Amino acid sequence: MSLTRVQFFSISLDGFGTGEGQTLEAPFGHAGERLHEWMFATRQWRGPDQPGGSGGVDDLFVKQHDQGIGAEIMGANKFGPRGWHEDPEWKGWWGPNPPFHTPTFILTHHAHPPIEMEGGTTFHFIDATPAEALKTAREAAGGKDVRIGGGATVIRDFLAAGLIDHMHIVVVPILLGRGVRLWDGLEGLENDYQIEAISSPSGVTHVTFTRTGA
Amino acid sequence: MSLTRVQFFSISLDGFGTGEGQTLEAPFGHAGERLHEWMFATRQWRGPDQPGGSGGVDDLFVKQHDQGIGAEIMGANKFGPRGWHEDPEWKGWWGPNPPFHTPTFILTHHAHPPIEMEGGTTFHFIDATPAEALKTAREAAGGKDVRIGGGATVIRDFLAAGLIDHMHIVVVPILLGRGVRLWDGLEGLENDYQIEAISSPSGVTHVTFTRTGA
Ligand SMILES: NC(=O)c1ccc[n+]([C@@H]2O[C@H](COP(=O)([O-])OP(=O)(O)OC[C@H]3O[C@@H](n4cnc5c(N)ncnc54)[C@H](OP(=O)(O)O)[C@@H]3O)[C@@H](O)[C@H]2O)c1
Ligand SMILES: NC(=O)c1ccc[n+]([C@@H]2O[C@H](COP(=O)([O-])OP(=O)(O)OC[C@H]3O[C@@H](n4cnc5c(N)ncnc54)[C@H](OP(=O)(O)O)[C@@H]3O)[C@@H](O)[C@H]2O)c1
Repeated sequence: MSLTRVQFFSISLDGFGTGEGQTLEAPFGHAGERLHEWMFATRQWRGPDQPGGSGGVDDLFVKQHDQGIGAEIMGANKFGPRGWHEDPEWKGWWGPNPPFHTPTFILTHHAHPPIEMEGGTTFHFIDATPAEALKTAREAAGGKDVRIGGGATVIRDFLAAGLIDHMHIVVVPILLGRGVRLWDGLEGLENDYQIEAISSPSGVTHVTFTRTGA
Repeated sequence: MSLTRVQFFSISLDGFGTGEGQTLEAPFGHAGERLHEWMFATRQWRGPDQPGGSGGVDDLFVKQHDQGIGAEIMGANKFGPRGWHEDPEWKGWWGPNPPFHTPTFILTHHAHPPIEMEGGTTFHFIDATPAEALKTAREAAGGKDVRIGGGATVIRDFLAAGLIDHMHIVVVPILLGRGVRLWDGLEGLENDYQIEAISSPSGVTHVTFTRTGA
């Protein structure tokens, strides 16, 4: 069965999935890299050429990236800084070989032809409801799972529509104070999920949500 | 040295320290008892007359209540439901022998004579800045620590004024969606504290803040 999954989406203790003031130079606004330092420190992220790195629970979660994923859906603001659709050269933040390696659907109100990248990633631009986008991505995923890749706005919309089967959130012990909140308007979410938390020696806490099918 | 401490203040995953709609029947509004179930389940809370209860990290934190505390400061909305000052009989939620057993200072804009209770608790009503209130409570604490007892508004104000030395927050895996937020306006708080998180099998995550004296 093909599931809909969120993987290591990182938020601050006060619930922000990105900082304020996203630009080309600062993809996460004033948050900088602070939401993802725990991830950069893992063995999996560093790769075989860089010795060392954390090998515990943080690493286990990062190793799940790509496992069983057949397509991704992301928001327009994850794909590029505001106004990217006016730049005909913009192909995302990730260089010629993006780390998706699957069909990747960008939710946007701006029509755009698809972009085929190296390594199996093709960017498709769609204007659709979460349920419609999921149907399209599911068909492209060839029986594998669909990753909802963020940002906070898109994850929140998919949660509100009841479309997420499994979600992994990483709470980083910083207070951003401003940015885009993940949790707004999701009162009672816990009724539909089994929730577990596991704190890591790195300081972050991993929170997993598994839909109970209630 | 006398410290200023916050002890097991419980918030939802989305950061609310209490629900919406506090009344005499519902001291935590629509949150009900859900922010404190982890605490009611501990051996310490149940006491020697009720066998069983959780004996791990949740219990260790609850056992710290009263240890070394010489005075408490709380907000007017922790002391009673809105309008309590118009009821001459109101003496707090806690019965004739409240669980403070020290001088207890209620921050309020409504002047009120002190109330002496059984067991060492005396309620004093003061209209003062956080720093002034702390000075008064410190003098009354006889060299022991001062507990900032909540609610979220008062803890936030004391944090913003840089007055908290040690804080223990309990993150409960529910989404309240509405109520009083703890974290608003505290951007960068992590710069002044060593922060640790420890998740408990009960599902809550304890987050401790220890001031580094930076
Ligand atoms: N914390 C993490 O782990 C993590 C992970 C990924 C990304 N991020 C960061 O999160 C930020 C982006 O998040 P965000 O919440 O600001 O935005 P987002 O979720 O990436 O994108 C929201 C935008 O997508 C478009 N959109 C969303 N739903 C749509 C629909 N149903 N139909 C058509 N268009 C739709 C709209 O843009 P238009 O109307 O302009 O088309 C909307 O403003 C970036 O800073 C990114 O770097 C963080
Ligand atoms: N989650 C937990 O572990 C926990 C712990 C304790 C309490 N609670 C709950 O939290 C809720 C109360 O929290 P809250 O944030 O609504 O309010 P609160 O912090 O208890 O009280 C805020 C009120 O105190 C008065 N006040 C605050 N600072 C003052 C100052 N410097 N000078 C004079 N008056 C001042 C003002 O009331 P006036 O202007 O009306 O005087 C203000 O509206 C209750 O539902 C309580 O049950 C939760």
